[in-house]
Amino acid sequence: MIDVEEDKRAIRALVTAWAKATSEGDLATILNLMTDDVVFLTPGNPPMLREGFRKGFENMIRSVTVKAKPDVKGLDITVEGNVAVSWGKMEIEIKPLAGGPARTAQGHTLSGFRRCRDGQWRIFRDANLLSALKS
Amino acid sequence: MIDVEEDKRAIRALVTAWAKATSEGDLATILNLMTDDVVFLTPGNPPMLREGFRKGFENMIRSVTVKAKPDVKGLDITVEGNVAVSWGKMEIEIKPLAGGPARTAQGHTLSGFRRCRDGQWRIFRDANLLSALKS
Repeated sequence: MIDVEEDKRAIRALVTAWAKATSEGDLATILNLMTDDVVFLTPGNPPMLREGFRKGFENMIRSVTVKAKPDVKGLDITVEGNVAVSWGKMEIEIKPLAGGPARTAQGHTLSGFRRCRDGQWRIFRDANLLSALKS
Repeated sequence: MIDVEEDKRAIRALVTAWAKATSEGDLATILNLMTDDVVFLTPGNPPMLREGFRKGFENMIRSVTVKAKPDVKGLDITVEGNVAVSWGKMEIEIKPLAGGPARTAQGHTLSGFRRCRDGQWRIFRDANLLSALKS
């Protein structure tokens, strides 16, 4: 029995949990929110897979903290069976651990989600179109 | 009766037809390949809807020809009922009608497709992550 509104709530909760875990540098939580075959796309870079994400995140949190602020309420979500597609706005703030000015970027994301065998929704495709703001 | 392989063939045909129509400046054909509620996302720009696409395309073909070369064969497609998600590589070449050097851009796209009531698949979400190549 599929309840689309319940699915949308679960996907908003996923996006919120992802942002919280990003701010906290909690890689294990984030890895549990993506599928094994996840693909991340960004402008000017090759596609990044799960292992690339893991390494990139580990490197990143050695030098900066990242505060991700997705517009969870405004997220547009289409659910079809065990797949969902969302798009929405996001802003991020990157602060060097060593101090100094924060950088911010904002823009949109387009994401694909899959309901996995354990019943949990996970990201399986993601396009991140954020661009740096002039500081 | 849903046949996923047949759906994937139909989506590849759509992407091929879109690229051909782009090269030919054939706006009517392209408009028939997207839904009324289509959303196009690109880095650094606000979301573009159907009407914005129409105006942008009409303006564009007054001054340039655009050759779109999607990697249709390499396109990764996930079909779930009446929704599909694809990602793949694309290259475009933009030539001024007035002559002069062509510009090229390459990168990836992440797209959502919907099977409409008439049975035809159409694009309803699109993230274009192409970036300009140094010429």
